[in-house]
Amino acid sequence: MAPVSLDTINPKVLKCEYAVRGEIVTLAQAVQEELKSKPGSRPFDEILYCNIGNPQSLGQQPITFFREVLALCDHPSILDKSETRGLFSADAIERARQILNQIPGRATGAYSHSQGIKGLRDAIAAGIEARDGFPADPNDIFLTDGASPAVHMMMQLLIRSEKDGILCPIPQYPLYSASIALHGGTLVPYYLDEATGWGLEVSELKKQWADAKSKGITPRALVVINPGNPTGQVLAENNQKEIVDFCKKEGLVLLADEVYQENVYVPEKKFHSFKKVARSMGYGEKDISVVSFQSVSKGYYGECGKRGGYMEVTGFGPEIREQIYKLASVNLCSNISGQILASLVMSPPKVGDESYESYSAEKDGILSSLKRRAKTLEDAFNKLDGVTCNKAEGAMYLFPCIRLPEKAIKAAEAAKTTPDNFYCRSLLNATGIVFVPGSGFGQVLGTWHFRCTILPQEDKIPAVVSRLTEFHKSFMEEFRE
Amino acid sequence: MAPVSLDTINPKVLKCEYAVRGEIVTLAQAVQEELKSKPGSRPFDEILYCNIGNPQSLGQQPITFFREVLALCDHPSILDKSETRGLFSADAIERARQILNQIPGRATGAYSHSQGIKGLRDAIAAGIEARDGFPADPNDIFLTDGASPAVHMMMQLLIRSEKDGILCPIPQYPLYSASIALHGGTLVPYYLDEATGWGLEVSELKKQWADAKSKGITPRALVVINPGNPTGQVLAENNQKEIVDFCKKEGLVLLADEVYQENVYVPEKKFHSFKKVARSMGYGEKDISVVSFQSVSKGYYGECGKRGGYMEVTGFGPEIREQIYKLASVNLCSNISGQILASLVMSPPKVGDESYESYSAEKDGILSSLKRRAKTLEDAFNKLDGVTCNKAEGAMYLFPCIRLPEKAIKAAEAAKTTPDNFYCRSLLNATGIVFVPGSGFGQVLGTWHFRCTILPQEDKIPAVVSRLTEFHKSFMEEFRE
Repeated sequence: MAPVSLDTINPKVLKCEYAVRGEIVTLAQAVQEELKSKPGSRPFDEILYCNIGNPQSLGQQPITFFREVLALCDHPSILDKSETRGLFSADAIERARQILNQIPGRATGAYSHSQGIKGLRDAIAAGIEARDGFPADPNDIFLTDGASPAVHMMMQLLIRSEKDGILCPIPQYPLYSASIALHGGTLVPYYLDEATGWGLEVSELKKQWADAKSKGITPRALVVINPGNPTGQVLAENNQKEIVDFCKKEGLVLLADEVYQENVYVPEKKFHSFKKVARSMGYGEKDISVVSFQSVSKGYYGECGKRGGYMEVTGFGPEIREQIYKLASVNLCSNISGQILASLVMSPPKVGDESYESYSAEKDGILSSLKRRAKTLEDAFNKLDGVTCNKAEGAMYLFPCIRLPEKAIKAAEAAKTTPDNFYCRSLLNATGIVFVPGSGFGQVLGTWHFRCTILPQEDKIPAVVSRLTEFHKSFMEEFRE
Repeated sequence: MAPVSLDTINPKVLKCEYAVRGEIVTLAQAVQEELKSKPGSRPFDEILYCNIGNPQSLGQQPITFFREVLALCDHPSILDKSETRGLFSADAIERARQILNQIPGRATGAYSHSQGIKGLRDAIAAGIEARDGFPADPNDIFLTDGASPAVHMMMQLLIRSEKDGILCPIPQYPLYSASIALHGGTLVPYYLDEATGWGLEVSELKKQWADAKSKGITPRALVVINPGNPTGQVLAENNQKEIVDFCKKEGLVLLADEVYQENVYVPEKKFHSFKKVARSMGYGEKDISVVSFQSVSKGYYGECGKRGGYMEVTGFGPEIREQIYKLASVNLCSNISGQILASLVMSPPKVGDESYESYSAEKDGILSSLKRRAKTLEDAFNKLDGVTCNKAEGAMYLFPCIRLPEKAIKAAEAAKTTPDNFYCRSLLNATGIVFVPGSGFGQVLGTWHFRCTILPQEDKIPAVVSRLTEFHKSFMEEFRE
């Protein structure tokens, strides 16, 4: 008798879903293996992963300065060798020294303070101040292995039972639905308005809040993803102010997913942190609880594999802060390379530093290329029969809407799957392109979408566009009424 | 009105305790700040952290070969430069190349497979096979940010409610009590027998198992820490066999904390993994579920800050494996440097490699020094009035028992704390030495202990011994009846 079966595990685990690494991706990995063992077995020779915000897996190069500093901190004994000056830039050597001096005993192999190394938190707080123009306190920073564990920590803190609700945008990044399910809470959906470029209407927030209350659910927090994932919209400052006021009035913790803060592609929009917006409205520590999540995985750096990130926790009393600290301490600390990288991302080279020019060129190259790719893919989607796609103002994704013929919907039913899944599966089998079906993010009932990253390198984009266009034509023809 | 108060957070978070970073450590940090701002304010000039298994924070140096490989993987563009051969050993360069070739796109900055990079799991599985003499499957390996997240993942999988019990040794490493509390289960204690060198008696397991059942609790898993933390005992193979049989008979998942597998200091004991023991008894995949936890933080490597580790998951059906994979995928993947380090630890340099001699010398130097330190501290404790200390056969800790005078127990009561906490706090204030009170690990009612690591560098040990001895004398005198 097996000690563990599906009937005897935690039902919350069963309930949790995580589409970004779900069925389609598992299928893609199988097809990739097939291509390796039986070359030529498919009408394509590689898998194009457009499912996940993982830039370096698709060829984006890391920022040289950041990697120089990391390598030197990993192996400090080469800092004083003459060959090192031939291999590393002078400011990377200097920065590595500074960072090592901030680490007790210069020990990058030691557990740190559970919130992260104090000197690195100082650098991050200074970076936030420079960004926002309002003070930031290093004691508010909790460094984490990417942003995900920080999100889990807040859900774990806030959710007592299924009677506690977390307001989440629909569509949403499935980390939120997964984390709420794992912690046994209730996701209270608020719908972004596709017709107005995925607008976030406060009237919708109010409606869903009231609806949840009427069902006996206590809304505890509001998740906002800005720039949006999977939607790519960037909130206007006025809209942010309304959201802040709503949270303040209803006593909601504002959980601000701001990991795409460097990814804004349109001149008419600018990133404003929610903490900055709250402070600019005159609201301080006592008025509103705001948690801001940031990660080294996104932006122009895209260092997903390093698992660095932080949350800035404001507007909680010391007794609650102590509980958050305790949660952080149970896992001892986040990885030190990720901590170092988080500090570098928030305090990159400055004008006059030896690396500044090459750093700037690398950064601008990546961001301007992302902008071009977003536009090319957006245009390509809008040319497809039955597909409409909002502008990617920011982040790394497009989330086009697809009106599928009734016959395709029936075929999906017969194949015991959802129509969006059916489309994505067919696309993968025919072209090797991997999209994530909209079902994984949530969508208005009866509408179908998929998420596509803008991350394939520019030389691959024409192939994505032509393979997709060709597939779409034949798919629509096959299922024409 | 604050949206969050102690009355409205998750009560499981409130209940959770983590003594290794608890009150005494917070006090130590405050005293350290005081020493910095007011030098000479205390009768000592530094804090001696003996509270946590964090070797490099106390001056242990990392293994050079490991750090060389990590640095090269962080900044692969120097691999082909001529200066690099002057700075790095040839086999580290070669190993870095091999590892990079195993990473799709050589991208150390990309999210990996959620279980970890396949090539690294291959190396780990090969290392386990070499250690145990039984096959290991890379698909059974889940790489994690240190061992802690792996433990949480298993608790999350197994615990449905407070009716699910996890058998844990007392004293235990408080990660287990914390994780069980956070996931809402019940810790079913089984007591290690201090009189027989912290022996693990199967009769005690049976008794506590039956007692839990009689209270309506379903025991789901048995935690064994071998070598022991905080107790330092190493289980005899025969004893392990009895434990395996008990788990098999009662349908318990065997959660084997084997992070101290390299830390055995006595010739009469040897580390055997529980999987090896089960296989040597003829039990296969279908007979017993065994999860083995390993970490880069312990052993002779002590790379706590890198947050590398893995669990080897055997004896679960594919449907359960899928659920574990899903849990891993919600956090995307563990950090790549930690993954690389985990593979290095399980496949270090071999005889004939350029680095082998220096690697061996570093490893043996650390392990033989740990052995000497363990003996010196053990002897010192046993010389203290009212203190008895079992032998540290392995791991990094001693857990002496202290019989406190009634007057000290009353003084603790008056100070609203436990006697062991009172003793540790007094010790810290008088000497700067940080121990963790036994209460944090659990102890037989009415007995008092503390945990002391064997990690201060050898030149500091005489100071620890003399300060402790002097303090203890005056403490016992002060509270003599």
